[in-house]
Amino acid sequence: MPETHDAVEVIVTKRNKAALSDEQIDWVVDAYTRGVVADEQMSALAMAILLNGMDRREISRWTTAMIASGERMDFTRLSRPTVDKHSTGGVGDKITLPLAPLVAACGVAVPQLSGRGLGHTGGTLDKLESIPGWRADLSYDEMMAQLESVGAVVCAAGSTLAPADKKLYALRDVTGTVEAIALIASSIMSKKIAEGTAALVLDVKVGSGAFMKNLDDARELAQTMVDLGRDAGVTTVALLTDMATPLGGTAGNALEVQESLDVLAGGGPDDVVELTLALAREMLLAAGREEVDPADKLADGSAMDVWRAMITAQGGDVDADLPTARERHQVLAPSSGVLTRLDALAVGMAAWRLGAGRARKEDPVQAGAGVVLHAKPGNTVKEGRPLVTLHSDDERRFARAEQSLEGAFDIEAPAGPGATGAPAPRDVILGRLT
Amino acid sequence: MPETHDAVEVIVTKRNKAALSDEQIDWVVDAYTRGVVADEQMSALAMAILLNGMDRREISRWTTAMIASGERMDFTRLSRPTVDKHSTGGVGDKITLPLAPLVAACGVAVPQLSGRGLGHTGGTLDKLESIPGWRADLSYDEMMAQLESVGAVVCAAGSTLAPADKKLYALRDVTGTVEAIALIASSIMSKKIAEGTAALVLDVKVGSGAFMKNLDDARELAQTMVDLGRDAGVTTVALLTDMATPLGGTAGNALEVQESLDVLAGGGPDDVVELTLALAREMLLAAGREEVDPADKLADGSAMDVWRAMITAQGGDVDADLPTARERHQVLAPSSGVLTRLDALAVGMAAWRLGAGRARKEDPVQAGAGVVLHAKPGNTVKEGRPLVTLHSDDERRFARAEQSLEGAFDIEAPAGPGATGAPAPRDVILGRLT
Repeated sequence: MPETHDAVEVIVTKRNKAALSDEQIDWVVDAYTRGVVADEQMSALAMAILLNGMDRREISRWTTAMIASGERMDFTRLSRPTVDKHSTGGVGDKITLPLAPLVAACGVAVPQLSGRGLGHTGGTLDKLESIPGWRADLSYDEMMAQLESVGAVVCAAGSTLAPADKKLYALRDVTGTVEAIALIASSIMSKKIAEGTAALVLDVKVGSGAFMKNLDDARELAQTMVDLGRDAGVTTVALLTDMATPLGGTAGNALEVQESLDVLAGGGPDDVVELTLALAREMLLAAGREEVDPADKLADGSAMDVWRAMITAQGGDVDADLPTARERHQVLAPSSGVLTRLDALAVGMAAWRLGAGRARKEDPVQAGAGVVLHAKPGNTVKEGRPLVTLHSDDERRFARAEQSLEGAFDIEAPAGPGATGAPAPRDVILGRLT
Repeated sequence: MPETHDAVEVIVTKRNKAALSDEQIDWVVDAYTRGVVADEQMSALAMAILLNGMDRREISRWTTAMIASGERMDFTRLSRPTVDKHSTGGVGDKITLPLAPLVAACGVAVPQLSGRGLGHTGGTLDKLESIPGWRADLSYDEMMAQLESVGAVVCAAGSTLAPADKKLYALRDVTGTVEAIALIASSIMSKKIAEGTAALVLDVKVGSGAFMKNLDDARELAQTMVDLGRDAGVTTVALLTDMATPLGGTAGNALEVQESLDVLAGGGPDDVVELTLALAREMLLAAGREEVDPADKLADGSAMDVWRAMITAQGGDVDADLPTARERHQVLAPSSGVLTRLDALAVGMAAWRLGAGRARKEDPVQAGAGVVLHAKPGNTVKEGRPLVTLHSDDERRFARAEQSLEGAFDIEAPAGPGATGAPAPRDVILGRLT
């Protein structure tokens, strides 16, 4: 079969700021998956897309072409409605862990096909793998059976869903082309649509610890994804949420599992509880179950029951102690006053350098490593008392982790000159798009 | 040795429209030559450079880094001054063939390190290789000896000059990143500066058959190269010349050698003679030999003598018949009147499709293939008489070559409605920059 297009022609079209035709998009995504379009050609195209953009038709077609590169799943034979949730990633973002069993406890099936972490944001699978015995790799039949019996599953996405996206994502990661709204949106949505969920709630993070550093970019990304969902017949809603400061009081793997257990037990940090309930309500609304109040399911222990069933079904020992790091190091508050800023990216980098994250896909992660925050913005801190505690199996990592935190927080003296008083509590939820 | 930079950091700098530091440029060019920066990373950077540009400092540093990737040559031990000439490439551009021996006949040494053709513009080496026995590959010592004894040499550029440029050019060719002024200028000038010439005359083509389609772009490219030459201590001057219509009356390999012989014999097409003499005068001026009139050296046969010595020194048989194509096909004028337009790109594409050029580096070329023009813009043509003759060893190529010529020419009836009369003769030389 002769090729219907040629890579240079497609690249030059976008380079010259023209729109790609449906045929060009179908061909280039398919030919890249087949290896006919080379990596160095696709990276040049990705850079041209990043700098010159794609319009809504192009993004929609690109997403469809990526879905067509692989298999599609189908949840319609399940006895309950399915709703999926996706977060664009942030520091301390453990929300999937309490959320999936909570929504399942409300009668909705929650399939969470997740990934591992790369760089400063943690991966959901890395967190759950800190539970002794828990395994991420399920067969299609195992996943379906668990969705039917337990109602919630968090597992690794198979390589048969949108393989074009898998290949393109790895390429973008090494070519400075990750931060293209068109490519981020089509990457996320191609996987979610191929997965076959009936409804989808997006948690689009905004701030230093997120891909999107400002509200305008986050809103554009969210709207693009909501539009793509609608085009594909998937009920889609997006919340814009704060990632200027970390979520909750921990960033790490086992540390975040423990914090999630606190939430499932009816406690946990306010911001994690607030965001978990907000996302649960959106998921229930999308599934037509808005009459159920998820707060009740946290209070009565039924969310915790689903958690235990979900972890046990995947081989995890829910009664085993979680791993802890061999070494700890405290960072002390340099002055007394009100903590007015604690930078998410800096905390994420510190957790990564402590061993909680990986620099390359093949790197291992430490289950116990991470950062524990003793104060959040708005809290009062005292000079010489611990501000954060660093956890790692390797004490040589503390120095570089501490470097990450330099300039990462502001403390204002309560009545000193220049003080502006305690900041208003930050809103976790900054906006909503449908 | 740890790497001092990382490819993504350099790509993101240019992607975000910032200037690359000297250290970033030195590192990325060197690391790409060493294979530490991958092709897919360099192509993303090339696209970012194409779309976001480089300032004069960056282009100058980039050029210096490419020169530093290889060896430098030195012509200072020759007994005569050296002047080099470079054309950005056009259809029917055989000027190097009469020019090099002509300027050598005026007492200046002319080293012409040339390339083979790719796409619709012919390569000087391909043209000369149609002469039986002539060889392009000379050792450094052979080249120096010929420059001293004959005064002119046209040969293949060795792989030791600016290897970074060689690798980058091949990459740009397949990634839609050829047309970046910063990269074209640094590519040309890195080779010319590494070659060690004392002075350089640039022939920057403008029009459909050239890289630069309009005068503004051509002027920017020319000025960029003149500045780079000055920065490197090479006396550099640029002529902007017309490439809306082909140069002379032929496009092909042996066909263009024959036309060059006509010029050296004192005849030949007016535009080829005019441009050859204009470039010769610039080269003599740059070498401090402006008292010599090159027209005299065409008239008295001394340029032809140098040609014969130059071809003979490289194994060519100057008395052998030039190869001719096995098949010919005439394209007839569809009406009578004045030819007002004959598109250079279309003629170049036709010659390429007839077998005179190559689509891939490893393809062979036909020595006899090409296009002979029976009229140029401004000439009168008669309905049913030949407008162009196509030459090829393979008659199956005529149909596609003829397709290239569709819509490529305009004929205006002398007194019909809408006629504007014969066009003013086109200027070959459109501007001069120093």
